[in-house]
Amino acid sequence: MVINHEFYMRLALQEAWRYQILTYPNPPVGALILDKNGKILAIEAHRKAGEEHAELRAVIAALNLPQINELPNPDSRHRTLIEHHKGAFEGCTIYTTLEPCNHYGSTPPCSLLLKEMGFSRVLYGMRDHNPKAIGGNASLQEAGIEVIGPILEQECRDLITPFLKWQKNRFCFFKIATTLNGVYDGGTISSLPSRTLVHQMRDRCDLLIIGGETVRNDRPTLDARLINGKAPDVLILSHEKTFDQTIPLFQVPNRTVYIEQNLDKIDAYHLIMIEGGERMLESTAHLIDWVCLFESAQMRSGKTVQYSADFERVHTQPLASDIIEWIKKGESS
Amino acid sequence: MVINHEFYMRLALQEAWRYQILTYPNPPVGALILDKNGKILAIEAHRKAGEEHAELRAVIAALNLPQINELPNPDSRHRTLIEHHKGAFEGCTIYTTLEPCNHYGSTPPCSLLLKEMGFSRVLYGMRDHNPKAIGGNASLQEAGIEVIGPILEQECRDLITPFLKWQKNRFCFFKIATTLNGVYDGGTISSLPSRTLVHQMRDRCDLLIIGGETVRNDRPTLDARLINGKAPDVLILSHEKTFDQTIPLFQVPNRTVYIEQNLDKIDAYHLIMIEGGERMLESTAHLIDWVCLFESAQMRSGKTVQYSADFERVHTQPLASDIIEWIKKGESS
Repeated sequence: MVINHEFYMRLALQEAWRYQILTYPNPPVGALILDKNGKILAIEAHRKAGEEHAELRAVIAALNLPQINELPNPDSRHRTLIEHHKGAFEGCTIYTTLEPCNHYGSTPPCSLLLKEMGFSRVLYGMRDHNPKAIGGNASLQEAGIEVIGPILEQECRDLITPFLKWQKNRFCFFKIATTLNGVYDGGTISSLPSRTLVHQMRDRCDLLIIGGETVRNDRPTLDARLINGKAPDVLILSHEKTFDQTIPLFQVPNRTVYIEQNLDKIDAYHLIMIEGGERMLESTAHLIDWVCLFESAQMRSGKTVQYSADFERVHTQPLASDIIEWIKKGESS
Repeated sequence: MVINHEFYMRLALQEAWRYQILTYPNPPVGALILDKNGKILAIEAHRKAGEEHAELRAVIAALNLPQINELPNPDSRHRTLIEHHKGAFEGCTIYTTLEPCNHYGSTPPCSLLLKEMGFSRVLYGMRDHNPKAIGGNASLQEAGIEVIGPILEQECRDLITPFLKWQKNRFCFFKIATTLNGVYDGGTISSLPSRTLVHQMRDRCDLLIIGGETVRNDRPTLDARLINGKAPDVLILSHEKTFDQTIPLFQVPNRTVYIEQNLDKIDAYHLIMIEGGERMLESTAHLIDWVCLFESAQMRSGKTVQYSADFERVHTQPLASDIIEWIKKGESS
């Protein structure tokens, strides 16, 4: 294996993928720091809007300063680092999957952090074209920092495709859980860590679309109780308007439930998750940007999805006994 | 992410998995070298019996000496390194997924190489209990090298489970290719790199088992032509004894083809690959140690495997547009 810029960028990418969707409305970003001798000091990622950007998290991890996390917010952590650890990364290199941001949000700009910390080299995966954040590379170069990139640009673009879409309009993904042999019915399929991640996704989503048949048969809650999270609004796609109101999903407070024969209502939403099986996949295929498949290691007899489509694999990651596969529509579909 | 011994061992493991089965009759082994400052110099693996062990390959890569590969064989490479680069790795650390070997095979012992190269620290994944190779750690410690382990012992044991089984008696794996939605019929499923890897596996296997129905319907060759490799012996499991002898698999030279109603003939073989779909999986379930699933990113309508079994995921790796999943029987099955 060749140990080069791509190798390190790939490690940063893998870390960032663990938080795909969960950073909404921010982009997922990964960062890796090498010390002046080339030793890996940290591999971190942005995890949630309002929390540290990847670069800040990597700097805290690299300095091995867990006590800094006791400060009340990312902004105070950022400022304390600059005050007390100025120049601590002289000679060091940081890889970021996305050009460092250059604006004041919940923290001062990452470009400022990297300059004040004294980094000598910044390698970026792809340029940031977000008008709010633009200009990080130029600002770093003006400060005399060597800026190199793009590195693994396509992979870095894939990572933030959901962000680019929800920022512009809407990102819609179809989440399905199957066994190793493709069966999606017959009760719980995924491990608890996978189901917890799905609840984190629900917590972040604006809207969850589900089929009327699933609602009647499974009587789901469709909330985010495993993480005490927010339950998204629900759109039940159904020709039949009447549902037993004792089905738990109707009892969840602070949620709007639509029962609709079409998908006209989705225009108000930016991050949409669809859950279901073969029929929902067919009914919503025109909307779907990506499929997110949770695959267990079991085999089971049962229903499989009979459907044809050209997809491309974007990323695969293990989670406990399952794998998570992110799939995008192929060029031809 | 925590950057610790497990992190580096996992990188060595991932590299080794790329050559699972292909090292037969040797074990797959991965190695990673850190310089005295902790920078990664090399991540390499043993690829094929008769070629360099993982440690030797990593040392050559770390010294960036491609010209050494022009020497006629691993033995001469090993001896040249010791002669010209003695002590080159003073202060350095090497991770190996398996305790370094301590015997003269196609090369002198890896323990000798590590001592002569001057390594300061060796981290091993699991002890080597192979009587032929045993004693590496003790020999390193006697030379004053710090030896630390086991690291990720279970994962390192999983990696060499096929080796441990074929060495003792027999390892048998069921190879199947499916689409993302579990369909296994309807023509070519896997990408060319995946099919090439399957040919490499066939080249290494002693015996390939296949069903009579597949032979009649698909008229396969079942050789290793994509790599100009050796075609394994074939056992056709079939109640019907008569086959059209123009089916290509019968034309392959230097191969024995059995047509059998049972599997009594397999006792002479140590590495057995079964290819097929649902019926073959059912007929051979009692024999199978692992399933090797090549999964494409497409969806297609067609036949899926209707079968129930508790499996555990051992490893998943991407290969071109596909993923390869290694699955073992669960504790309860």
